[in-house]
Amino acid sequence: MESMPSLKAFQHVLERIAEEIERTPGRGRAADYIPALAALDPRRFGMAVCEPDGTVYGVGEWRQPFSAQSVTKVFTLALDLAGEGDALWEHVGREPSGNPFNSLVQLEYENGIPRNPFINAGALVVTDRLHTRTGHAAETLLEFLRAESGNPALAFDLDVAASETVHGDRNAALAHLMASYGNIDNPVPVLLEEYFRQCSIEASCADLALATGFLARHGLRADGTRLLTRSQAKQVNAVMLTCGTYDAAGDFAYRVGLPGKSGVGGGIVAVVPGRCTLCVWSPGLDERGNSVAGVAALDRFTTLTGLSVF
Amino acid sequence: MESMPSLKAFQHVLERIAEEIERTPGRGRAADYIPALAALDPRRFGMAVCEPDGTVYGVGEWRQPFSAQSVTKVFTLALDLAGEGDALWEHVGREPSGNPFNSLVQLEYENGIPRNPFINAGALVVTDRLHTRTGHAAETLLEFLRAESGNPALAFDLDVAASETVHGDRNAALAHLMASYGNIDNPVPVLLEEYFRQCSIEASCADLALATGFLARHGLRADGTRLLTRSQAKQVNAVMLTCGTYDAAGDFAYRVGLPGKSGVGGGIVAVVPGRCTLCVWSPGLDERGNSVAGVAALDRFTTLTGLSVF
Amino acid sequence: MESMPSLKAFQHVLERIAEEIERTPGRGRAADYIPALAALDPRRFGMAVCEPDGTVYGVGEWRQPFSAQSVTKVFTLALDLAGEGDALWEHVGREPSGNPFNSLVQLEYENGIPRNPFINAGALVVTDRLHTRTGHAAETLLEFLRAESGNPALAFDLDVAASETVHGDRNAALAHLMASYGNIDNPVPVLLEEYFRQCSIEASCADLALATGFLARHGLRADGTRLLTRSQAKQVNAVMLTCGTYDAAGDFAYRVGLPGKSGVGGGIVAVVPGRCTLCVWSPGLDERGNSVAGVAALDRFTTLTGLSVF
Amino acid sequence: MESMPSLKAFQHVLERIAEEIERTPGRGRAADYIPALAALDPRRFGMAVCEPDGTVYGVGEWRQPFSAQSVTKVFTLALDLAGEGDALWEHVGREPSGNPFNSLVQLEYENGIPRNPFINAGALVVTDRLHTRTGHAAETLLEFLRAESGNPALAFDLDVAASETVHGDRNAALAHLMASYGNIDNPVPVLLEEYFRQCSIEASCADLALATGFLARHGLRADGTRLLTRSQAKQVNAVMLTCGTYDAAGDFAYRVGLPGKSGVGGGIVAVVPGRCTLCVWSPGLDERGNSVAGVAALDRFTTLTGLSVF
Repeated sequence: MESMPSLKAFQHVLERIAEEIERTPGRGRAADYIPALAALDPRRFGMAVCEPDGTVYGVGEWRQPFSAQSVTKVFTLALDLAGEGDALWEHVGREPSGNPFNSLVQLEYENGIPRNPFINAGALVVTDRLHTRTGHAAETLLEFLRAESGNPALAFDLDVAASETVHGDRNAALAHLMASYGNIDNPVPVLLEEYFRQCSIEASCADLALATGFLARHGLRADGTRLLTRSQAKQVNAVMLTCGTYDAAGDFAYRVGLPGKSGVGGGIVAVVPGRCTLCVWSPGLDERGNSVAGVAALDRFTTLTGLSVF
Repeated sequence: MESMPSLKAFQHVLERIAEEIERTPGRGRAADYIPALAALDPRRFGMAVCEPDGTVYGVGEWRQPFSAQSVTKVFTLALDLAGEGDALWEHVGREPSGNPFNSLVQLEYENGIPRNPFINAGALVVTDRLHTRTGHAAETLLEFLRAESGNPALAFDLDVAASETVHGDRNAALAHLMASYGNIDNPVPVLLEEYFRQCSIEASCADLALATGFLARHGLRADGTRLLTRSQAKQVNAVMLTCGTYDAAGDFAYRVGLPGKSGVGGGIVAVVPGRCTLCVWSPGLDERGNSVAGVAALDRFTTLTGLSVF
Repeated sequence: MESMPSLKAFQHVLERIAEEIERTPGRGRAADYIPALAALDPRRFGMAVCEPDGTVYGVGEWRQPFSAQSVTKVFTLALDLAGEGDALWEHVGREPSGNPFNSLVQLEYENGIPRNPFINAGALVVTDRLHTRTGHAAETLLEFLRAESGNPALAFDLDVAASETVHGDRNAALAHLMASYGNIDNPVPVLLEEYFRQCSIEASCADLALATGFLARHGLRADGTRLLTRSQAKQVNAVMLTCGTYDAAGDFAYRVGLPGKSGVGGGIVAVVPGRCTLCVWSPGLDERGNSVAGVAALDRFTTLTGLSVF
Repeated sequence: MESMPSLKAFQHVLERIAEEIERTPGRGRAADYIPALAALDPRRFGMAVCEPDGTVYGVGEWRQPFSAQSVTKVFTLALDLAGEGDALWEHVGREPSGNPFNSLVQLEYENGIPRNPFINAGALVVTDRLHTRTGHAAETLLEFLRAESGNPALAFDLDVAASETVHGDRNAALAHLMASYGNIDNPVPVLLEEYFRQCSIEASCADLALATGFLARHGLRADGTRLLTRSQAKQVNAVMLTCGTYDAAGDFAYRVGLPGKSGVGGGIVAVVPGRCTLCVWSPGLDERGNSVAGVAALDRFTTLTGLSVF
C-alpha cells in the first residue's frame, strides 16, 4: 500500500471527484415507483469519507438527508447477526444471486431460503428475525443509526413508507412465498410495515458514513463497545462485496474493489477495512438500481487513492 | 492490520495448519469423472505461501505435482486480458453465476455470453480467444507457467486430457451453444482439445503459488516485466473473489476473505494483494467442487495471520 | 367410431371399471394440506356418466359429495368467458405450463400473465375478473352448479375454505405477484376469500357430471339456453385437454384422450363432445396432484368404449 | 356431428379456403436460417385432404414439393414406436414443453430426458433410437414415405441438409448435452447427419396427407397392414395435439382443435381420426415457427366442416 495518500488528502480527493462528476453528462434516472424519490434531480450529488476516529470529510450535499432505502440492510444485518449469531445463516444464504434483486425464481427453486441478506427477500427475513427478537425492528435500527451518527434528528419518512405500502405487491409476494416455506415468523402485513419504515429512514452521507464506521473498526461501535466480533465484521464486509449491489456485484467489485451497499434512493456506503468508510449520494440510477454518479465517484476514489481491497 | 505477523512466521503458521488439518476427520471425495484423479487419496495435503520476491514456504506435499484443472483459468484470463484488454469483456461477463459451474441455463437466457471467465463456458471463451490470437493457447499457458515458476519440467498430462475428451459431452454442448450465438471463433473440436490440454497441466503448490505472484505484485511478472496494469491486476483479483469458487464464491469470501480460484484436481490458489500468494492442494472435494481441506486451510490461514482483504 | 357401444351399455361399463379398480392395489395419498381432505380413505371411489339429455349412470359412491376444489375452474372459466368473451385472453394465456401447478417462475418471466386458466395463478385471474363483473364470484358459481345439477343442496364447506386461508401463503404470493404487474383488480384478501370459497364447494360425481353437460352439448345449458357459443364450447374443451391436469396434461391426453379437469379433492370431470360427460372421484392422488384411481378409471372407460377424441 | 358435410364437399371447402387465404394480407416470414427456404415467397399456398381410402382433394400448389422439416417427426415417432413400443418413453417424455422448441433449459433440469418427441431434442432421441435399430434412420423414413404416398420420386435435398449442418451448432449442443446424460447411443456427428437428412426430405401436400393416413385409419398403412396398434395410433394423435406445434400447441388446439404437426418449411399435417388427414403448405411463419396461412387454413377448415375433435 505504498501509494496510499496521507489521510489529510481526503478532502482534496473528494473535491477533485466532485469536479469530475460535475463535468460528466449522463446520470441515469431517479427511482420512479416512489413519488418522493421520482421528483429528485438526478444530478444532485454529495459524498463523505469518515476515518475510524470519527473525523468526517465531505463535498457537495454531504449533509443533505436522503432516503436510505436498501442501504439500511447493512445495519439490520449487523444488528441481527450481533443478536443471534450464525443461527441467522440457516434462514438466509450468503451467495450472490445472479438475478435481479427482487426475483422470485431462485426463492422458489431453493425452498424459500433467500440467496443473501441484501436481496429484498433476504432483507425481509433479516427484518423479520430482528423484529421477533426486539419487538420493534425499525425502531431498533433508527436508535442504532442515531447513536452511531450522533444525529438524534434522524427519522422515518412516513410518506415514503406509505407510498411503498401502496405499491408493495412485489414485496408482499416475496414475504408470502417465504411464509409458505415457513421462513417468516411475523404476519406478513406486520413485517411489511416494519420493512417499509426501515427503508424510509432519511439520513445524510455524513450520517451513514459515520454509522458504517463499525465495519472499518473491525466491529467496534462509535463509543468503543463491541457490536460484532472481528470475524463477524470481516464476514459482513465479505457479504457486502459479493452481494451488496444487486446483480452488479461483480462489476462493482471489478470497478470499485470495495465492500459496498447501494439503495434506490441513490445512496451507496462503502468500506476500506481498517482505514475509512464512505457514503456517496446521487439520485440518478442505472438499469440495475445503483447510483450512476455514486459508482463513478467510488471508482475514482479507489483509483486516486489506491485504497482498494485488491 | 496491526495484528499481521512478521512474514518470517509463515513457516510456523503453515505447520500449525497442517497439524490441524491432519486431525480433521472428513475430507470429501476426489473427482470421479477423470480416472487419474479418482484414484487419489482424499487425505493428501500440501500448501505453499510465496512472498512477492519469490521466497516460498511450504508444508506437506507442497512440491508434489497435481492436476491444475480450473486453477489454470486464472492464468489464461490474465494472458488474454494482457493481450486484448477490455475487448474481452464483450464476450464474457464478470458477474457471479449463482448457478452450478457448468450450467447451460444462464448461457441460454443471456444469448451465449457466459457470466464470468471462471465458469466452464467463460473459460472456453477465454481459451478460444487466446487461441485465436496466439495460435496455440495451451502451449502459451504452459510456457507462462514454466517461466513464472522457474520449473521447466511442467508438462501436460495427456492421459488426463484424453480422458476428458472421452467424457467431454457437457463441454462440447457448452461450446456448440456459444458457437450458435457466434461467441466461439475456432472449430469446437479444436477448442476442446486446447481446453483439455490446458486443464491437464501438472504443477505443484510451489509452482502455482509462484505463478500467481503477478497478482500480489500488482501486475509484474517474476522477471519484473509487466503482464497486467495495476488496474487490471486489481480487476482479476476482484473477479477471483466474486467468481473463483463456482457457486460457493460468497461462502469462500465469507470464510476466507481472499481472491481465490479452485480446480477439481483439489488445488486452490489465493492472493493477499501486495503481501503473498498461496496454493493449497488436497484432492477431496465438497459437493460444489472445492477442496474440503483446501478451503479449511485457507480459512485457518487468514484467521491465524489476519491477512484477509476485509 | 364403429366400435362405439350402445349408450345403454354405460352402466355395465361402469360396473366393470369399478370391479377392476377395486382389485388395484396402489391408490396414492389424499391431499394433506387441508385437514378435512387428509382424513379421507384414498380407496374410496365413485363414478358417474351423464348423457346430453341428463340421464345419469353411476357406480360406487357416485352420489357422495366431495370437495370439488380445482374442478370448479372449468365452470368459472366458462362463466367468465360467457360474460366477457375473448377479452379474457388478454389476461390469461391458453398454453400448457410445463411446470408444477403453482409455479411462480413462469409468471415472473411472462410479466404476470399466467399460462392458462387452470393453473392456480390463471384461476385466480379468472375468479378476479368474474368477481369484478358479478360482485360475487363464488356465489355466481354456486348458483350455476345448483341450476345445472338440479341440486339446490350444493353448498360451500366453510371449514375447508377457512383451512385454506390459514395455509394460503402460496396463493397470496401468486396474487400479489400478479397484482404487481397490474393483472388483478380486486384487493388480494377479497380475491383469496372468493377463491377459497369457490374451491370449497361440495358436490357429487352425479352433480358435477350434470354440471359439465354444457360442454357435451356444444354450449347449451341444462334448460336449453345457451351459455357458450359452439365455438367457445370447443375452445374450453381444447383448453381442458391441453391444460386440465396440471403438468400431467400430455400424459392424460395420451392415456385417456379426453378433455378433463382434476382437483386435489380427488375429483376429475371429463367430456366426450357430443356424447357424454363423466365425473370420477377417489381421494388418493399421484405426485402431480391427480386422482390415481380417477385417471385409471377414465383410461379404462375410453379403452372399453372407444370413446376417445382421437 | 350433425353439421358435418358430405365428404364430396371437401373440394368445395378447399376452394373456399384458398380464396379466403388469397385475400388475407399478412403472411409472416419464411425461415431465414436455411438459404433454400429463405428464398421462398411467403404467399405461396397449397392444401390437400385425404380420405382413409386414399382419395385426395387439393387446391393451390398441393402437388408442389417443399421441405418437410419437422413434419417428418411424426413419421419417425410412429416408426420407432412400431419397432420398440413403450420402451421409447423411458428416453423421451410426452408432456408439452411450455418453452421454445429448441430450449436447453428444461433438458438440463430434467437430466437429459426431452419433454416430448416433437421438440428438437426429443426428435433427436427418436432418430437416434431408430438409427440404432435400423442402421439407417433417414433411409427408413424415406422408404416409408415413398410407400405411403405412392410416390417413388421422394428424395432428400442434400443442399438443405448440408446448410443445416453448417449452422447446426444448436442441435449439436442439444445432442451433446443429452449424450452427457447417457441418452444418445450414436456418435453425435453421425446422429446429426441422419437428422438433417431426415428433415431435408421434399414432399408435397398430397404426399404428406397420404403418408399421414395411418393416423386416420387407427394404425393401418396404405396397403392395409398394421403399423401401429389402435391404441398407439390414438396415442400419437394425442402427442400431436398437445405437443405438435412447438410452444403454440395450446393455441393450435384452441383454434384448430385437431392433432397437427408443423415444420419450418411451412408445412403442417393434421388428422381427423377416422375421417381424413390434411396437409397445408405456405412458407411464411409466425414468431413461433408455424405457417401463418397454414394455421389459418386449418382453422377455417374445422370451422366450415365442424370436423374438430372437440
